[in-house]
Amino acid sequence: MDSGAEGGQTIGELGEFGLIARLATEIGDNRHVLLGPGDDAAHVSTNDGTFLVSTDLLVEGRHFRRDWSSAHDIGRKAAACNLSDINAMGGVATALTIGFGAPADLPVSWAIEMTRGFEVECAHVGAHIVGGDVTASDKIILAVTAMGDAVRPVRRTGALPGDVVAFAGHLGLAGAGFAALSRGFRSPKAAVDAHRVPHPPYAAGPRAAGAGATSMTDVSDGLVADLGHIAEASGVAINLDSSAFVVPESVAAVSDALGVDALTFMLTGGDDYALVATFSSQADLPSGWTRIGLVSEGDGLTVDGAAYIGPAGHQHFR
Amino acid sequence: MDSGAEGGQTIGELGEFGLIARLATEIGDNRHVLLGPGDDAAHVSTNDGTFLVSTDLLVEGRHFRRDWSSAHDIGRKAAACNLSDINAMGGVATALTIGFGAPADLPVSWAIEMTRGFEVECAHVGAHIVGGDVTASDKIILAVTAMGDAVRPVRRTGALPGDVVAFAGHLGLAGAGFAALSRGFRSPKAAVDAHRVPHPPYAAGPRAAGAGATSMTDVSDGLVADLGHIAEASGVAINLDSSAFVVPESVAAVSDALGVDALTFMLTGGDDYALVATFSSQADLPSGWTRIGLVSEGDGLTVDGAAYIGPAGHQHFR
Repeated sequence: MDSGAEGGQTIGELGEFGLIARLATEIGDNRHVLLGPGDDAAHVSTNDGTFLVSTDLLVEGRHFRRDWSSAHDIGRKAAACNLSDINAMGGVATALTIGFGAPADLPVSWAIEMTRGFEVECAHVGAHIVGGDVTASDKIILAVTAMGDAVRPVRRTGALPGDVVAFAGHLGLAGAGFAALSRGFRSPKAAVDAHRVPHPPYAAGPRAAGAGATSMTDVSDGLVADLGHIAEASGVAINLDSSAFVVPESVAAVSDALGVDALTFMLTGGDDYALVATFSSQADLPSGWTRIGLVSEGDGLTVDGAAYIGPAGHQHFR
Repeated sequence: MDSGAEGGQTIGELGEFGLIARLATEIGDNRHVLLGPGDDAAHVSTNDGTFLVSTDLLVEGRHFRRDWSSAHDIGRKAAACNLSDINAMGGVATALTIGFGAPADLPVSWAIEMTRGFEVECAHVGAHIVGGDVTASDKIILAVTAMGDAVRPVRRTGALPGDVVAFAGHLGLAGAGFAALSRGFRSPKAAVDAHRVPHPPYAAGPRAAGAGATSMTDVSDGLVADLGHIAEASGVAINLDSSAFVVPESVAAVSDALGVDALTFMLTGGDDYALVATFSSQADLPSGWTRIGLVSEGDGLTVDGAAYIGPAGHQHFR
């Protein structure tokens, strides 16, 4: 049972990404697994086809707050962040399961509204809740697994020097909304609403796959962090051109009110579930996609040619 | 946002099964869903085939205890209870995802041993961990989703009057082990070990499907409770013949020590993940299956012709 030098280390010291990487080394290869842990979703073969699957574990107080968001909004967001993982593979989600933990004194009406929120968000892509589990717990827990179809799963590993970097969806809105809520504000509405219910660009994922995207991921932890995963997984350098970003009005408003550079929200804000992808420079970008940078030989992520030093993305266990 | 009369009711008052039934009414039908919530696993169609999926949410202190079980055992049991759901449909599990919540001060070695436990159990059926998520939480949370192949999914709804009732695997062992541990005992070993790591009869599910089982479920909450679900879903009456049960030695030992009727453990003990199924009286029972009762017209579950009044199965939120 001895695990050597790791015996004394805690998971807080190792961090979320370190722990995932360490645990992944315990998992062998298998004929069913076309693509295992390490991307937005896994690609699994069945006896008659394949499917995509991704899972997220959301805990009250850490991923959502009942005093900030309604049950309906919490259900929608929990669905959205999972549907986004399938979107980020270029797939279309078809089925969701929900593990629901809650205190015994939670009103039934709260659980019903949450379920309706899941259904409303799933309807955007034609997915459905197919199963679940409920149990008592001190805090509300939402364990969501999304499954879907993929014709050509787009991984994080395929970016090539010379490729164009582009994004689809929103950047910075939810992050600005979170910053505003954290300071006790309830506006600007567009930003605060985006934190409560993100609007992933569900059409953009399959469209990018169809247009030959060489790599893709969703922006859950912040553009710099998530695009950094593509750079690392693909073994390339990526430079972003800050002049390509159009700052949304509500992000500018939060920026002014809090004295935070608007670009910081665009580059490091999480929870908007935008998509970022790379395309051959010869490819026409599909509609809804905006060019924001270039891939080159090397490694690391730069903004306007310089290393970006800003607040880090989400770090769990911190 | 008003949910009418339910507005004032809590999920503790409604109970686990009541809540699941209520939430299921919020979920519409969908072309992807061949079989939705309400059975051991859902059956989902993809663009090129189908798969089975089931999910469980396990919380420290409620479903497992670190002072009773090692990390390796907890991983094995969490895997087993999900693989059993696929087994109970007559399927073969191929892929698992794990949502893992844990306090920051948890040793990395604990997470590694748990992951190894998952891998060991998955190896029994050839399944593999394909993805996961980790987050910080006060208590350890394990949200497990199992997916698998099914040639002919066996539901709970197909039992017919005249059918034979049979089981495969163990009954009462884990329940007796739980009772012993609860009183501070660490023996008998077979029972205590069965509570820590169940041994679902993984070959028996596909074999029963192949032999034409008319209905099937796994025994997670106790034989009376789970077979009651088959009786209700199929709209039939089921009678069990208590003389057909052979009491394992360790169950008899716990029975003697605690002054609890041994049959109580066999009929109400959960967590062994045995299978119970119905077969046409003309069918030969597959190997590993033992006849224990009969299906007839009517409703409800009886033992030796009388309603069984005993301790209830697991009731969450209580």
